Amino acid sequence: MKFGGTSVADIDRIRNVARHVKREVDAGHDVAVVVSAMAGKTNELVAWCRDASALHDAREYDAVVASGEQVTAGLLAIVLQSIGVTARSWQGWQIPIVTSHAHGAARILGIDGDELIKRFKERKEVAVIAGFQGIHKESGRVTTLGRGGSDTSAVAIAAAIHADRCDIYTDVDGVYTTDPRVVPKARRLDKIAFEEMLELASLGAKVMQVRSVELGMVHKVRIFVRSSFEKPEDIDPMSNHPPGTLICDEEEIVEQQVVTGIAFSKDEAQISIRRVQDKPGVAAAIFGPLAEASINVDMIVQNVSADGKTTDLTFTVPAADYQRSMDVIGKARDTIGFDRIDGASDVAKVSVIGIGMRSHAGVAAQAFKALADRNINIRAITTSEIKFSVLIDAAYTELAVRTLHALYGLDK
Amino acid sequence: MKFGGTSVADIDRIRNVARHVKREVDAGHDVAVVVSAMAGKTNELVAWCRDASALHDAREYDAVVASGEQVTAGLLAIVLQSIGVTARSWQGWQIPIVTSHAHGAARILGIDGDELIKRFKERKEVAVIAGFQGIHKESGRVTTLGRGGSDTSAVAIAAAIHADRCDIYTDVDGVYTTDPRVVPKARRLDKIAFEEMLELASLGAKVMQVRSVELGMVHKVRIFVRSSFEKPEDIDPMSNHPPGTLICDEEEIVEQQVVTGIAFSKDEAQISIRRVQDKPGVAAAIFGPLAEASINVDMIVQNVSADGKTTDLTFTVPAADYQRSMDVIGKARDTIGFDRIDGASDVAKVSVIGIGMRSHAGVAAQAFKALADRNINIRAITTSEIKFSVLIDAAYTELAVRTLHALYGLDK
Repeated sequence: MKFGGTSVADIDRIRNVARHVKREVDAGHDVAVVVSAMAGKTNELVAWCRDASALHDAREYDAVVASGEQVTAGLLAIVLQSIGVTARSWQGWQIPIVTSHAHGAARILGIDGDELIKRFKERKEVAVIAGFQGIHKESGRVTTLGRGGSDTSAVAIAAAIHADRCDIYTDVDGVYTTDPRVVPKARRLDKIAFEEMLELASLGAKVMQVRSVELGMVHKVRIFVRSSFEKPEDIDPMSNHPPGTLICDEEEIVEQQVVTGIAFSKDEAQISIRRVQDKPGVAAAIFGPLAEASINVDMIVQNVSADGKTTDLTFTVPAADYQRSMDVIGKARDTIGFDRIDGASDVAKVSVIGIGMRSHAGVAAQAFKALADRNINIRAITTSEIKFSVLIDAAYTELAVRTLHALYGLDK
Repeated sequence: MKFGGTSVADIDRIRNVARHVKREVDAGHDVAVVVSAMAGKTNELVAWCRDASALHDAREYDAVVASGEQVTAGLLAIVLQSIGVTARSWQGWQIPIVTSHAHGAARILGIDGDELIKRFKERKEVAVIAGFQGIHKESGRVTTLGRGGSDTSAVAIAAAIHADRCDIYTDVDGVYTTDPRVVPKARRLDKIAFEEMLELASLGAKVMQVRSVELGMVHKVRIFVRSSFEKPEDIDPMSNHPPGTLICDEEEIVEQQVVTGIAFSKDEAQISIRRVQDKPGVAAAIFGPLAEASINVDMIVQNVSADGKTTDLTFTVPAADYQRSMDVIGKARDTIGFDRIDGASDVAKVSVIGIGMRSHAGVAAQAFKALADRNINIRAITTSEIKFSVLIDAAYTELAVRTLHALYGLDK
């Protein structure tokens, strides 16, 4: 079980978390709980580090920031004991959760789950684990996994203790076919494949961190996204299933839909470079300077040259980086060699995701027709095995999402 | 060097601490710094634990509360690095500071100072150490030493690294002959013997924790009490000595005064039991029930029986416990056997401390005469090798302290 900062923001909410844990224990399960810092605490600690020095030692930053999760873990253990649940807290170094030395963004290298499993067996003891942290074995120093790392801690621990499932408690009750604020008819998915969730997560659905989904896929840890506000009466009395979305292997999804969900992101900007020399090294000449300027390039579309000499090249960047990107490319004009640049800072990317696309032809073609019927102009298209994305004017985002949501039967 | 919570209350004050450390490093010293939690933080963490459960697991309490010092240590290391001082933070378990398993009030069993000394030699690296905490080796769990434990951490670490001196930075600039708010002529002592400081500390002079003075005495760690508000211009240019008080072995004090200081405590209450049976077991019959009621008995005065059958017995308790104590003794009347009880809840204890008393007769007699000259009635007297205490009406406290302060030449 994993609970984020909002779910443990104060003692009352920690009591609520304890009730969720007790329910699982009473059902006969062995439980490990991973907790984040109380909401706002990590920001406070980070601000102190920045105030102490703009350029701070990442090892000291980690020692300071990791304290937030340590506090929550101890408090939850106290509350669990007070309601009759045997429990103890664990800091990263105590288990240990061994990580790389990349302080502030460490990778988990290994977790020894034996002691936790032994305590499940011998004492029925719940392990309350400080998320987001570990230890670098050689130096003996505390590391952190980077923001949002508690999801990763939870999945890694689930793998180490051979858990049947890793329940991620969040402020939503699962993964939806699209953002319900845009499409009121959006439905919660009962199941979604790891690959699909990866596409959704990286495309801006903020439910889960990409890293933790990857980890779940590699270690075959089934992840269940559910709500920390869930009440006993929310559990279906017939199936005994709580509301939520299971992220799992595609084999486990019996009735696989062709399309699983629609993701979108506004705040994109499009830049097109016209009549670029079609020769080796041109892409590097364009994207090298952008990378140096720390500008994150997303979609890249380059057509096969018509005349064999020049081509047009289009890419997207965050809207906030639009002007800076135009300047960077302008300065590199001599090395790149092109006719002109044009672009737009008010575009949106809409993506359609579904493992079923692999075996169904014409899925994208249906979308192009439906958008055309609505007079929505497609500026660019990219595709991968299980998704395709279109770039459109930002003003049409909601219309396009609703259109595609209905088109693929997700409204029902 | 040790800095308390007020000295590290925010980043600006931590910067001030860093300047003190840099000054010592620039003077060529190897430095270990022990820090408390930022002022208020420990109280916040303790309140959360209490809120989580009135009866909380002391091991979890320790895991939560120890986080405060961890944060300060990391922040000070960051600030030190930013002003060019090589530094790293250490948590109790990293050194390790090995303690007993008495969570919340653990005793330090041993500290391995070798790694710290090695780093002094090889890298000139300042060790910034989280005070108040350690680790219980067998369970691998974090322990705390109890409130005020950072002084103890500092003295124990000073012993482990064979430090020349342990500087305790506080909000006063040393130990005074008595409270300057009562006697404006009170003087700062340049030196005081461990034994004298122990008496002063336990009698209510709040400069240092009793435990840490004891530890200094046992391990022969010279402790220097000085102010964290000290400025460079406060240092005497002739002697190069900063203002402060050195707590040291009595041999180091060349010109030993007969009397070193006057301590006092108001808020005492006196209870006298008249015509108690003078037989074995009576003291137990009186003080047993008081101990069971968690009432802290201080002075106990019992005279030799005049008639061989009965005697009067007087003792003091905190004024807040006066009525409760009277009730406890009243209930135990049958088992104790006495004529009547009387008492007063507005008395004060004034104590005169000085190692020189050992070799000077008549020191106490001078006091009794001086107090009599001022018409101050002495209710009871207790003495030990290096101090004597008198119980008087609370209204005369200031007059008595000023009289004795002048009598023993402490005004000069």
